[in-house]
Amino acid sequence: MKTHKIAVMAGDGIGVEVMPEALRVLETVSKKHGIALEYETFDWSSADYYQKHGQMLPDDWFEQLRGFDAILFGAVGWPAVVPDHISLWGSLLKFRREFDQYINMRPVRLMPGVPCPLANKKPGDIDFVVVRENTEGEYTNLGGRIFEGTEREVVIQESVFTRTGVDRVLKYAFEVAQSRPAKHLSSATKSNGLAISMPYWDERLEQMAAQYPDVRWDKHHIDIMTARFVLNPEQFDVVVASNLFGDILSDLGPACTGTVGIAPSANLNPERRFPSLFEPVHGSAPDIAGKNIANPVAMIWSAAMMVEFLGQGQAPYQAAYTDMMQAIEHCLAQGPRTADLGGKATTTEVGQAIAAMI
Amino acid sequence: MKTHKIAVMAGDGIGVEVMPEALRVLETVSKKHGIALEYETFDWSSADYYQKHGQMLPDDWFEQLRGFDAILFGAVGWPAVVPDHISLWGSLLKFRREFDQYINMRPVRLMPGVPCPLANKKPGDIDFVVVRENTEGEYTNLGGRIFEGTEREVVIQESVFTRTGVDRVLKYAFEVAQSRPAKHLSSATKSNGLAISMPYWDERLEQMAAQYPDVRWDKHHIDIMTARFVLNPEQFDVVVASNLFGDILSDLGPACTGTVGIAPSANLNPERRFPSLFEPVHGSAPDIAGKNIANPVAMIWSAAMMVEFLGQGQAPYQAAYTDMMQAIEHCLAQGPRTADLGGKATTTEVGQAIAAMI
Ligand SMILES: CC(C)[C@H](C(=O)O)[C@@H](O)C(=O)O
Ligand SMILES: CC(C)[C@H](C(=O)O)[C@@H](O)C(=O)O
Repeated sequence: MKTHKIAVMAGDGIGVEVMPEALRVLETVSKKHGIALEYETFDWSSADYYQKHGQMLPDDWFEQLRGFDAILFGAVGWPAVVPDHISLWGSLLKFRREFDQYINMRPVRLMPGVPCPLANKKPGDIDFVVVRENTEGEYTNLGGRIFEGTEREVVIQESVFTRTGVDRVLKYAFEVAQSRPAKHLSSATKSNGLAISMPYWDERLEQMAAQYPDVRWDKHHIDIMTARFVLNPEQFDVVVASNLFGDILSDLGPACTGTVGIAPSANLNPERRFPSLFEPVHGSAPDIAGKNIANPVAMIWSAAMMVEFLGQGQAPYQAAYTDMMQAIEHCLAQGPRTADLGGKATTTEVGQAIAAMI
Repeated sequence: MKTHKIAVMAGDGIGVEVMPEALRVLETVSKKHGIALEYETFDWSSADYYQKHGQMLPDDWFEQLRGFDAILFGAVGWPAVVPDHISLWGSLLKFRREFDQYINMRPVRLMPGVPCPLANKKPGDIDFVVVRENTEGEYTNLGGRIFEGTEREVVIQESVFTRTGVDRVLKYAFEVAQSRPAKHLSSATKSNGLAISMPYWDERLEQMAAQYPDVRWDKHHIDIMTARFVLNPEQFDVVVASNLFGDILSDLGPACTGTVGIAPSANLNPERRFPSLFEPVHGSAPDIAGKNIANPVAMIWSAAMMVEFLGQGQAPYQAAYTDMMQAIEHCLAQGPRTADLGGKATTTEVGQAIAAMI
């Protein structure tokens, strides 16, 4: 079987603490299923690296990384040392854009043992995935200021949607929907307020839908969609959204299932021309960093998504993915648990427990 | 006492059904407290009007309305007859912008008798207000398409933030916060993704904060803020947000308190140079229109906000506002209730009951 090259970049804060647990679980599961993973560790994208080099990545980061199959990413951001806009645009957002990781997959699933903030929900009730556009749209530094510093100051920010960018995420989302039993796609829009960009998104959606007659689809204005996440999350199966709307929905969704702290994500370049990147949705969490109390589940779950993606449907990888997810569910249901879930276990203990369940 | 001129514009769908109930309650309460309200009814901003005139408003709408103190507005939108972008940009969004109703006040309050989708919350736990910028920001039709209809198509949409526009909503929000016991302001941002507009918003926030040393303030990225609405809504007192973020938060907030169906809003021109507009957050709801089953609470609550605004703090108006709110709470707690809250009462019965409780 192919050896997969994984770039390991723990980053900062709790990223550094949860990464070893993902590697521990990967070690166990890859041995069990004969999956060959080869790691190389990078100290980039961290406050330390920034302090030494004045930037988040070396100049030749693209060439150094492009041969990898995946980047396993901890967390970026340490505002005490690096302003957020530098750390994010200097690493994470750069990877997404330059490695053309145009799909950000963010599962939203109510897990056993995780207290749900919504009344009367049980595991199984909420189980959908947000497919977020990850390279364009509202996330830009295009625009600027005029009459700066005066009463007349005007600030413009431009969103940019391309035919290529919109179509490929819609296509991917329809395909994800098609592969699931419910075959249902919900698209986020705000065509009544954002009068140029979102009508375009909607137009392309309708065009694309024609090619997937077996997928039921609907669209929701983002305002009412967030309300529906809370009032009736059962209705969602696959949600497709622009960069900004997807960002919002993929924090709100996990919150509706109890915590953003265990949510994983996969930043995919589906064509595999460039490495894909797997990272927890949570950040570096300076407030709890260094205490070995962070919950490693999001990181381990992200690693599971990596294994699944690398396998392209091959049985050993699917089995490994299933093992990892079952171990995560088992651990969430029975403990040990970290403090965020009301337990007293350390990051290490949870990682060990999940590895042991495989 | 001054006679207040009210333009009554029921619009379409359930707007037409809930409006008489607001007028019924206003009639009772204004008599009781000696408040002089004078109504003029307009058939504008409706599908009927559009069918007759090909537009939502007459050409001289501005002149005809500008002498009014307030517009009591039902609901706009009847997609079977008028495309949404025409009905909205042709009336509601026009009023907001041209009458410079730059503040959109949207209370979020868990009311007695309304089942809360969040576990373990009781009335009193959730009670905050969203102060939404209402004239600029992300809501524009600036931008356009290039290479239209081809694979190279690019669509640009511009957001526009002005010093004037940002400062005045922040100032208003700080003042609202200052007037409340908790004196706490939370601002929505996304400076890490929207790299031009939101850093500007944050800068102005910090500037403004310096003038309100007694107000505690914080800022939240919009993604995690939506999560906090669900996980810990108790922490919010006053929330200030841009047009788009405010739109999202003021649907999500009411959802967290049980239903968007009873949420009111006040589109204010605080200087009173132009009429302010009071409307339910809900729309025209074609699916339940014409059946006399719509919940009139949002409309009546909006009318209560109108009375309070008109009174500028004078005692009879405050007393009238309090009476209206108590009657609403009483009715929600004890019934009668419309179908959306699990009851069987008609729109009329609920309106009558609320009027009778005053
Ligand atoms: C850190 C930030 C730029 C990022 C985003 O908004 O994409 C994060 O919120 C995420 O969702 O991965
Ligand atoms: C109908 C729509 C344009 C409007 C808005 O987005 O402002 C509505 O959602 C609201 O919140 O009043």
